[in-house]
Amino acid sequence: MTVDVTPSPVRLKAVAGPGQPEPTPELQELYRGFEQELLVPLWTEIGDLMPLHPKSKAAPHLWHWDRLKELAAQAGRIVPVGRGGERRAIALANPSLGGRPFATPTLWAAIQYLMPGEDAPEHRHTQHAFRFVVEGEGVWTVVNGDAVRMSRGDFLPQAGWNWHAHHNAATEPMAWIDGLDIPFSYYTESQFFEVGRERIGDAEKTTPERSRSERLWAHPGLRPLSQPDAPSATPLLAYRWADTDRALADQLALEDEGHAATLSPGHAAVRFTNPSTGRDVLPTIRAEMHRVRAGARTLSRREVGSSVFQVFDGTGRVSAGDRNWDVSRGDLFVLPSWAPFSVQAGAAANLDLFRFSDTPIFEALHAHRSEVAE
Amino acid sequence: MTVDVTPSPVRLKAVAGPGQPEPTPELQELYRGFEQELLVPLWTEIGDLMPLHPKSKAAPHLWHWDRLKELAAQAGRIVPVGRGGERRAIALANPSLGGRPFATPTLWAAIQYLMPGEDAPEHRHTQHAFRFVVEGEGVWTVVNGDAVRMSRGDFLPQAGWNWHAHHNAATEPMAWIDGLDIPFSYYTESQFFEVGRERIGDAEKTTPERSRSERLWAHPGLRPLSQPDAPSATPLLAYRWADTDRALADQLALEDEGHAATLSPGHAAVRFTNPSTGRDVLPTIRAEMHRVRAGARTLSRREVGSSVFQVFDGTGRVSAGDRNWDVSRGDLFVLPSWAPFSVQAGAAANLDLFRFSDTPIFEALHAHRSEVAE
Amino acid sequence: MTVDVTPSPVRLKAVAGPGQPEPTPELQELYRGFEQELLVPLWTEIGDLMPLHPKSKAAPHLWHWDRLKELAAQAGRIVPVGRGGERRAIALANPSLGGRPFATPTLWAAIQYLMPGEDAPEHRHTQHAFRFVVEGEGVWTVVNGDAVRMSRGDFLPQAGWNWHAHHNAATEPMAWIDGLDIPFSYYTESQFFEVGRERIGDAEKTTPERSRSERLWAHPGLRPLSQPDAPSATPLLAYRWADTDRALADQLALEDEGHAATLSPGHAAVRFTNPSTGRDVLPTIRAEMHRVRAGARTLSRREVGSSVFQVFDGTGRVSAGDRNWDVSRGDLFVLPSWAPFSVQAGAAANLDLFRFSDTPIFEALHAHRSEVAE
Amino acid sequence: MTVDVTPSPVRLKAVAGPGQPEPTPELQELYRGFEQELLVPLWTEIGDLMPLHPKSKAAPHLWHWDRLKELAAQAGRIVPVGRGGERRAIALANPSLGGRPFATPTLWAAIQYLMPGEDAPEHRHTQHAFRFVVEGEGVWTVVNGDAVRMSRGDFLPQAGWNWHAHHNAATEPMAWIDGLDIPFSYYTESQFFEVGRERIGDAEKTTPERSRSERLWAHPGLRPLSQPDAPSATPLLAYRWADTDRALADQLALEDEGHAATLSPGHAAVRFTNPSTGRDVLPTIRAEMHRVRAGARTLSRREVGSSVFQVFDGTGRVSAGDRNWDVSRGDLFVLPSWAPFSVQAGAAANLDLFRFSDTPIFEALHAHRSEVAE
Repeated sequence: MTVDVTPSPVRLKAVAGPGQPEPTPELQELYRGFEQELLVPLWTEIGDLMPLHPKSKAAPHLWHWDRLKELAAQAGRIVPVGRGGERRAIALANPSLGGRPFATPTLWAAIQYLMPGEDAPEHRHTQHAFRFVVEGEGVWTVVNGDAVRMSRGDFLPQAGWNWHAHHNAATEPMAWIDGLDIPFSYYTESQFFEVGRERIGDAEKTTPERSRSERLWAHPGLRPLSQPDAPSATPLLAYRWADTDRALADQLALEDEGHAATLSPGHAAVRFTNPSTGRDVLPTIRAEMHRVRAGARTLSRREVGSSVFQVFDGTGRVSAGDRNWDVSRGDLFVLPSWAPFSVQAGAAANLDLFRFSDTPIFEALHAHRSEVAE
Repeated sequence: MTVDVTPSPVRLKAVAGPGQPEPTPELQELYRGFEQELLVPLWTEIGDLMPLHPKSKAAPHLWHWDRLKELAAQAGRIVPVGRGGERRAIALANPSLGGRPFATPTLWAAIQYLMPGEDAPEHRHTQHAFRFVVEGEGVWTVVNGDAVRMSRGDFLPQAGWNWHAHHNAATEPMAWIDGLDIPFSYYTESQFFEVGRERIGDAEKTTPERSRSERLWAHPGLRPLSQPDAPSATPLLAYRWADTDRALADQLALEDEGHAATLSPGHAAVRFTNPSTGRDVLPTIRAEMHRVRAGARTLSRREVGSSVFQVFDGTGRVSAGDRNWDVSRGDLFVLPSWAPFSVQAGAAANLDLFRFSDTPIFEALHAHRSEVAE
Repeated sequence: MTVDVTPSPVRLKAVAGPGQPEPTPELQELYRGFEQELLVPLWTEIGDLMPLHPKSKAAPHLWHWDRLKELAAQAGRIVPVGRGGERRAIALANPSLGGRPFATPTLWAAIQYLMPGEDAPEHRHTQHAFRFVVEGEGVWTVVNGDAVRMSRGDFLPQAGWNWHAHHNAATEPMAWIDGLDIPFSYYTESQFFEVGRERIGDAEKTTPERSRSERLWAHPGLRPLSQPDAPSATPLLAYRWADTDRALADQLALEDEGHAATLSPGHAAVRFTNPSTGRDVLPTIRAEMHRVRAGARTLSRREVGSSVFQVFDGTGRVSAGDRNWDVSRGDLFVLPSWAPFSVQAGAAANLDLFRFSDTPIFEALHAHRSEVAE
Repeated sequence: MTVDVTPSPVRLKAVAGPGQPEPTPELQELYRGFEQELLVPLWTEIGDLMPLHPKSKAAPHLWHWDRLKELAAQAGRIVPVGRGGERRAIALANPSLGGRPFATPTLWAAIQYLMPGEDAPEHRHTQHAFRFVVEGEGVWTVVNGDAVRMSRGDFLPQAGWNWHAHHNAATEPMAWIDGLDIPFSYYTESQFFEVGRERIGDAEKTTPERSRSERLWAHPGLRPLSQPDAPSATPLLAYRWADTDRALADQLALEDEGHAATLSPGHAAVRFTNPSTGRDVLPTIRAEMHRVRAGARTLSRREVGSSVFQVFDGTGRVSAGDRNWDVSRGDLFVLPSWAPFSVQAGAAANLDLFRFSDTPIFEALHAHRSEVAE
């Protein structure tokens, strides 16, 4: 039995430096032995592998919504939607992640676009997903036969391994964003996929105001006795803007009345949760909506794990790691692990900011840390 | 505000194929737009990113213990141990993972080597670790001041963020293996590291038979009332071979007496657990010892996530994915995600097989699957 | 050292019977020895202590709302509310529980009555409590300074050890029911009590439509980021009738449309839950609202633990153990452990039935059982 | 429809006093109405039902082992063991609990006695049980076919609903104590019982040194992969004295060496735990062994819930509430809820004290409190 005859992918270079052995001929010989046996010493790699704190390979980056929509519309005209490609989804590729369609090392974020009358075919996958609608309406997502309306401000989670298809029932195209844990499941190699029907039945192309999931689960503090527990992911398929907006407004009003309700002055925030557990909607993805009062600034904070933000409304000035941007409706940006983040709302109006992150992964594994930076 | 002026890392090629749009000039133009804006469509990537089941980038691979020890001994002679390099640890580099010191996409496995009288300096890190000893003795690991003996067959977990150093108190070199979640925490960017004292104090260089952790926690079914709960990782620093061996022997004896005690005929197995929770010793790493009766063969099984095995005793014939190997004491091999695995013990003696895997990650995130293959 | 000189409370009688020893003089002498030493043999008690299934000491019983209100109004005229007596609460005393104010062995249920302008003084206790309003309005409960409106159909839980007082801000008396775990905590001897202010401040006698707790927590599927976790009991102080009613109506409508949404045909039900966990509102008390479609009948079911019901609306025919009653708005009845229960709604209108029970105790202790009786 | 015609068990007396209404004729009339309708006001009962802290109905009490054994031996001669009576078990009856066989409001404690060659018939019940052996040997308990040796110092838990029988395989009688949650399940009315075989088969009357449960589960920090999870109660049927003794000796030795290992100086303690969860062995019963160094005194402590203690070895001076006793081997005493407790070991030898309590009930329901009294 021998090791592979293909050339070893290991390449070791003996260099002088602190903590490094003398680059002697004996060391060179040792390193050739390592290469031959597919071995790599810790001492040449430790600085990269075990830094004092997370140093992300990803970069903070901003994508402008106008440009995304233009390209999506262009794709709408020439790229059909169907089996194989599955979705007209166009993903953010972090500039420091080698051209891969990964917004961050763990998160996928894409703009999806559906033309009037179009269907996206049914499939299911273990990757957890959600949709968030910054503008527009007219598409229904059919999840296990339950038609779910998608409208501005709605957050629509989709736990892994549920059948789903999209249908544009309107006369206008519609764009929205998809968030998934594709990079995480790709890297950890835990993903399954199955194709469903080419087209959902006409009987499923209904356009109800409220989905069945909402009629069962979207009543505050109430659970239906007929439904099973849903420990891993939320059974609620739509979180409507009217509810989110009211919750944020309530927090700012309570602050005005002198009560503790905000994260810091002028900074209201809610998390979307699984009503059957009170925990995150998906095992790998946290989703939140933040509202920063006109002119207010959030505390600067950094935490383990990465996030993607989309401006839902208003304008502001974002500080993400060593980058600063002016942002407005629809703009998307990514925040790498342990990069400090703060945002100041424009003076004219409140800034509403949708955020999703991989935090549940770290909380489940007891690896989460955060700090408010000075 | 503009996007980066550095050339985009995104490269898109329009090719004909099932599920792909026609490679027209318009499509080429669209792709140039995507590249400029750092965008990648799903339809060109879905086959790789969302396969029907996990298709590991890693390969099954075998490393022979004799060769590892030779190279480690060679390193022992010319590579000093000290601050900066931190450990004389030499890691397995999976042949399909680009020469990186990653046994699998999530797991690090290395041989570590300490010369007589040598100290490895104190540090701590959030990466979870363990040591397993296939042969030799004489080294004590000092964990937060508690000196832990390392002897053949012992499993020694080390939860993240505990201070630790090694000390060889014997007159012979000693080798053992280290297992860590370095690739996982590297990829998810959640790691912290802190250096400690250059040398531990002489008062800590004691060589007790049992560590304090064992005297508190290694009594079956008993917990000390004075100690706090340890929900995230085990407070027990050593799992001794005598206990492991007896547990495996008991299972085979019970099977002989006609009772259900084994996984399948001739296949005994124990998992190392946190005595304060009964769950895995570490949040990201599962560790087990398997004993296959002489001549017996395990069921062929595959599961989400990757494993590293080391033969502790005996010989056998391993089937891992599309590879087959004859293995004997000390040999290490890796099993990628969803690759079928079985092993047949040699006819002369039982085969004892140490295994560690990333299973707790998938269980915590509700993403684990396994099946017994036919 | 001797045993107490007070006469022993133990009395043993030797009687012939299956499983009993012969009533010989020697046995009599043994029993005298037992009595002297405060001992009781299992063999004389086992039939009572360890029956084949629960045989409740409590009886099914019905209290009519009209009569309760009359007596409460009478008390309103002559019994003041103040420190010492604390509340003008009048409890249901199960006819088989020795005249103690225990609706069931574990549950307290009382009608409370407050005259216009009256205050009930502030106190706190570890007993968990709730209020449910079958009719009327005008009282606010002030919980840690948060004024909570009480109106018809509202369910208002009150976790143990929170300061609370009541204030009638209206010009009419108001009655409602209180549910607590007083008997359970009395029997298990785990209760603490502390008196607060004689009168709450005028600034707290506000009469807001929504309490602060609702503005923070009563948004479906949303949690405020500023608030701490509430693992033991709900942070939401009011569950409004409009939400409950809509949830029940939705279930019956879904059933009409052919979807699984009800417990059995015509039987809709919701449970009040802690929005931060999705679990029961209180550690010892479960609360639910049931709606039985006009003319429909629920399945007959029995379960470990006891319940108290109040008819919220409609009329019906109840079967509880060996008892049958016609019930209408406000009527209260108790269902002992393991007694079969079903109800048939009157033909004219849906029957709405509020229920509370001690089920969380049994679920927490892995002792719950239930069965649908034939 | 009318209320029961049987005389009401409610009796109300109008008396003057703080917090009580004036005992006027109108009040008398109101109280007659309450009695007729089976109602009891809070204001007459609150002092008893809602005290400032638990005031136990139970009394601290001591039973001497010598006298218990004498009476058990006497019963051994004249009371047969068989179906119906089920066990020759003689229970402690707290002097303040009305002559019922309840050591405390929630706990049953009895001496059980089996003559040479005797069998106690098979049954199962939902009440959780354990056996503890202060002296003697020779009895095996057969649990679902697994024969479990009982010897001095062993703790033998028995989760609810497992078939079990006892067999005395020796030539001497044997006595031991049984602990169960009979009073708790009696009061909460959650108990089920089923009779099994009159006599277990001869093939089950084996007398192995170790039970199958021990061979599977009694290895420190190891769990058998072949066995299912056991979330509610321990799968381990015997906790041997040798392990318990060593764990306690280790704690005192660590203290001698200057390390934190004891609850307070000279006070070592271990809890018996479910190895599959690290939690209490039974959902309703906690069991611990305490060792107090010769001459040392424990801190005075009180907590919610009640306990029963048995002196396993040594002598000491116990302070329990307002009682003080000198105790020696085998003596049993009860400690009511919230009564302060401390013990001083005799000067000649360490004091070993077995304790069981209802603490898991309160921890599961978030109702536990304790304090170190000054």
